[in-house]
Amino acid sequence: MEDIKIHSLDLDGEDLTVFMGFPGSGLVGSIALAHMVDVLEFTHIGNITSKYFPAMAMMVNGVINAPVRIYRKDSYVILISDVPVHPMICYEISNGILDWLEPFSIKEVVVIAGIVTNEPEKRVFGVATDNNSLERIQGHAEILPMGSITGIAGSMLVECKVNGTPSFGLLGETINNPDPRAAASVIKILNQIYGFNLDVEPLIEQATEIEAALQQMAEQVEQAEQAPLKKEQLPMYG
Amino acid sequence: MEDIKIHSLDLDGEDLTVFMGFPGSGLVGSIALAHMVDVLEFTHIGNITSKYFPAMAMMVNGVINAPVRIYRKDSYVILISDVPVHPMICYEISNGILDWLEPFSIKEVVVIAGIVTNEPEKRVFGVATDNNSLERIQGHAEILPMGSITGIAGSMLVECKVNGTPSFGLLGETINNPDPRAAASVIKILNQIYGFNLDVEPLIEQATEIEAALQQMAEQVEQAEQAPLKKEQLPMYG
Amino acid sequence: MEDIKIHSLDLDGEDLTVFMGFPGSGLVGSIALAHMVDVLEFTHIGNITSKYFPAMAMMVNGVINAPVRIYRKDSYVILISDVPVHPMICYEISNGILDWLEPFSIKEVVVIAGIVTNEPEKRVFGVATDNNSLERIQGHAEILPMGSITGIAGSMLVECKVNGTPSFGLLGETINNPDPRAAASVIKILNQIYGFNLDVEPLIEQATEIEAALQQMAEQVEQAEQAPLKKEQLPMYG
Amino acid sequence: MEDIKIHSLDLDGEDLTVFMGFPGSGLVGSIALAHMVDVLEFTHIGNITSKYFPAMAMMVNGVINAPVRIYRKDSYVILISDVPVHPMICYEISNGILDWLEPFSIKEVVVIAGIVTNEPEKRVFGVATDNNSLERIQGHAEILPMGSITGIAGSMLVECKVNGTPSFGLLGETINNPDPRAAASVIKILNQIYGFNLDVEPLIEQATEIEAALQQMAEQVEQAEQAPLKKEQLPMYG
Amino acid sequence: MEDIKIHSLDLDGEDLTVFMGFPGSGLVGSIALAHMVDVLEFTHIGNITSKYFPAMAMMVNGVINAPVRIYRKDSYVILISDVPVHPMICYEISNGILDWLEPFSIKEVVVIAGIVTNEPEKRVFGVATDNNSLERIQGHAEILPMGSITGIAGSMLVECKVNGTPSFGLLGETINNPDPRAAASVIKILNQIYGFNLDVEPLIEQATEIEAALQQMAEQVEQAEQAPLKKEQLPMYG
Repeated sequence: MEDIKIHSLDLDGEDLTVFMGFPGSGLVGSIALAHMVDVLEFTHIGNITSKYFPAMAMMVNGVINAPVRIYRKDSYVILISDVPVHPMICYEISNGILDWLEPFSIKEVVVIAGIVTNEPEKRVFGVATDNNSLERIQGHAEILPMGSITGIAGSMLVECKVNGTPSFGLLGETINNPDPRAAASVIKILNQIYGFNLDVEPLIEQATEIEAALQQMAEQVEQAEQAPLKKEQLPMYG
Repeated sequence: MEDIKIHSLDLDGEDLTVFMGFPGSGLVGSIALAHMVDVLEFTHIGNITSKYFPAMAMMVNGVINAPVRIYRKDSYVILISDVPVHPMICYEISNGILDWLEPFSIKEVVVIAGIVTNEPEKRVFGVATDNNSLERIQGHAEILPMGSITGIAGSMLVECKVNGTPSFGLLGETINNPDPRAAASVIKILNQIYGFNLDVEPLIEQATEIEAALQQMAEQVEQAEQAPLKKEQLPMYG
Repeated sequence: MEDIKIHSLDLDGEDLTVFMGFPGSGLVGSIALAHMVDVLEFTHIGNITSKYFPAMAMMVNGVINAPVRIYRKDSYVILISDVPVHPMICYEISNGILDWLEPFSIKEVVVIAGIVTNEPEKRVFGVATDNNSLERIQGHAEILPMGSITGIAGSMLVECKVNGTPSFGLLGETINNPDPRAAASVIKILNQIYGFNLDVEPLIEQATEIEAALQQMAEQVEQAEQAPLKKEQLPMYG
Repeated sequence: MEDIKIHSLDLDGEDLTVFMGFPGSGLVGSIALAHMVDVLEFTHIGNITSKYFPAMAMMVNGVINAPVRIYRKDSYVILISDVPVHPMICYEISNGILDWLEPFSIKEVVVIAGIVTNEPEKRVFGVATDNNSLERIQGHAEILPMGSITGIAGSMLVECKVNGTPSFGLLGETINNPDPRAAASVIKILNQIYGFNLDVEPLIEQATEIEAALQQMAEQVEQAEQAPLKKEQLPMYG
Repeated sequence: MEDIKIHSLDLDGEDLTVFMGFPGSGLVGSIALAHMVDVLEFTHIGNITSKYFPAMAMMVNGVINAPVRIYRKDSYVILISDVPVHPMICYEISNGILDWLEPFSIKEVVVIAGIVTNEPEKRVFGVATDNNSLERIQGHAEILPMGSITGIAGSMLVECKVNGTPSFGLLGETINNPDPRAAASVIKILNQIYGFNLDVEPLIEQATEIEAALQQMAEQVEQAEQAPLKKEQLPMYG
């Protein structure tokens, strides 16, 4: 029994680009790639399960979804995970996926993730495994000169580097809530690099709704915090 | 030494349906399938043991039972477990069983389990691994549009999905006590789908007895809680 | 390096009966089988060690004993363990032993253990892996209709069941001290089934000594508990 | 999937010297070897990743670096790690690297590390795996007559010893801050032994800056500790 | 990569005796065998490392020592360990060493260790794996009739027993400090059995020094304990 099982159509054709998104800060990778799958109508071609993933089935309209799914359209492949990857098993998952990709003709791997900063902007930061790949994102994303990327995104980039697979990472500036606005920022860059012409308006609308809900929640918290204060103060002057 | 050992007659014949029940909420799967084995007089054809199961033998009339047993009648196979499966080993158990099923002609896998809600109804919820399987239960069970199923039931459905084995799950609405009434609800649906014509009256009677015993226990608890209260109150007014 | 090493003469011949005793409640299995080895003069034919056993050597008259030993006389084989088997490794030990037995002609496996009840009797309870084996002990032991047997005795019975090796278990009613009287009760039943004609008097004498010592210890504890009480009470009335 | 993956050009040629530095006390090995790679313009020829390393990517000018990198110039090979090696996996890492070196013609392995003493000097201590290697450093480093070296440096030296690979260790006397001055001391000895003629002035300048910053920090701490004391004392005399 | 690596010259010749000492109570085995290696001028012929040993290099005169070393002179082989063996891995280490010895002609294995008693004597206790080996030490050591020997010494004796390798253990009565006097007692017995004619005087001198130092330390502790007592008592009478 293999520790990681990949059931998928083979990736025939030449010079494929593989986009990967695992749940992380702001769910940036998952949201951006799910949007891309929906709007560009990618085909579901495969699934991944693993003894390293939690024992859990998730449903969409009553139909079970595999925890990690593989989609394809033309020369583009998308890999979306619904399950976070524990730091202890990133090496196994990264290499399991890259071993599967090995016989196919992969032009580049694009890792999409979030990065938490203390600023409200929605910049997109970029890193790459080699100078050629760095040129691909130069002028589109802000190059992160130094620092470190932890977790499965970091692991995947390192293994691509070691493997000799050209690869770059796009890290949307985000906070710790689901963040469609950061996902939109990443997609704008994918539009520039790949000419996808993907409409980000639906993501902006989602973001506005989430942000309004968070704002409302924050105001209620503020009122709730002020209200009892007044009640407690009243008897003091009574 | 294998980690999971399956000693069983081969599953010859075509288009078999495999029903599986592991102990979980309300023991719905175990109760429903044990009733089906008894009344329809299935034949015991195999056993499963594993290093992942607790070291324990259970007896029925002095005869040792394997922790997981395989039964068959015509094109129906039933797999009942007496031991709960720890979340950490669901992948191993699910795949061990599916690897064993692999050479046989399996039409569909039916996973029966319980689902705890806060409502007293005994509805049956359904999920499936593909749209064809979803149609099989449409109109019989209430389709669970979204959410997640954890544990061995979730794992088995995901692995069937990934495996390409058509599969659906029937989840009887239940509480955390053994719940023959929920098992009866599930069997009514199996009667509809497979034409089993199984009498659920014995399960309803069991349920009535269990419920009466629980009711009595609850009343005794209530009396016990009121009794000392009075004794404590008496001196206060003495 | 194997996890379990069995160095032994092969078990040639037909229709062998294998008796097994691991340390458990009352040490019933170990005491009964050691008595049988001594009185019937079985030959020491093999040893078992394992990475799962504690790192420890035990001596008899200055000579090291293996933790698990195999003895034989005619068509009878005895397997005695000095080391308890941790619940986590019962599957490995049971299957390691059964894998070794596999090429030989085994008629039946007899598992001897203790069972703790709250009653002073020294009954012997019986369970079996199939109806034929159950008939072998019917009328000799009290059949345990339901319940569960944990630990290596339970595991061994389950694996025999799954394996198709006819097997029964004799469980001597015991307490948590070494209990030769319970061992004697089991031997009386072995005498009935196999015609061993083994004298249990030495075990009864041992039991009487142990019981007298325990009784004396209990009385001393009682006196000790009463004595200081008096001393403490004296000054109170002084 | 291998536990340790080494992607590298083969080490052709004869009589190679391999320098190794893992992060440890004072980062002496990493600083010394990184300086050597920069100034002597070694070529990056390979990378190492492992399931034993933390899931993390580090960048240099936006380009991902593998956690352990292999460099070469003429008959000199340098191996630098950015990740510390946990004591539990030193055996695996040491042997993984030595297994990779095995087919090549290795003259000697030089392990560079730090050693914490309570003295302000920047001596360099030396140990070796055999008397010939000890002669190589005699007169250059102070031979450590006895004691023990823990961690990956110790493990690597032991495995070289057992392997029959001539090897010596140079341990720069250091403290627990990054210590370019200790690295400079080690490089002076490498200059003597290998005639590298490497300028250590840049390391001394770095050291001076770090030391000045630490000195300033220490003074601020001192002032901060004295300041509140005065404030607390004032009211006592007020 | 093997878990245990033994790099050694083959043990050619017939009827070899292998002495083994691992660090334990009083370091009796290590001290006795190191003395034998030094005085009789054994040749260092091999080393053992293992993933089970701590990551640590020890030096002698600046030269790294392997954690376990193999020495030989004529038909005598000595195996000395500087590292204690954790109870969980004794099986692996014992069998690793015995698997390596398997192809050679081994007459007997002699395990030397310490045994802590509450008495000041320096007796030597003996156990053996078979009656012939027991006769070898009868009259020289006091036979330990029953009891148990834990740890690597116990494990090695059990595995020799199971393996059919004649073996005996000599256990020097000791305390928990390095105990050359106990080592001397064991060597006197080796002199009797093997006619080594080894001078134990240097060990006795070492023992006298250690004992004097311990005595002095004990007196200082006693004085230190009395001194503050007086100081505390003074004010009470002041």
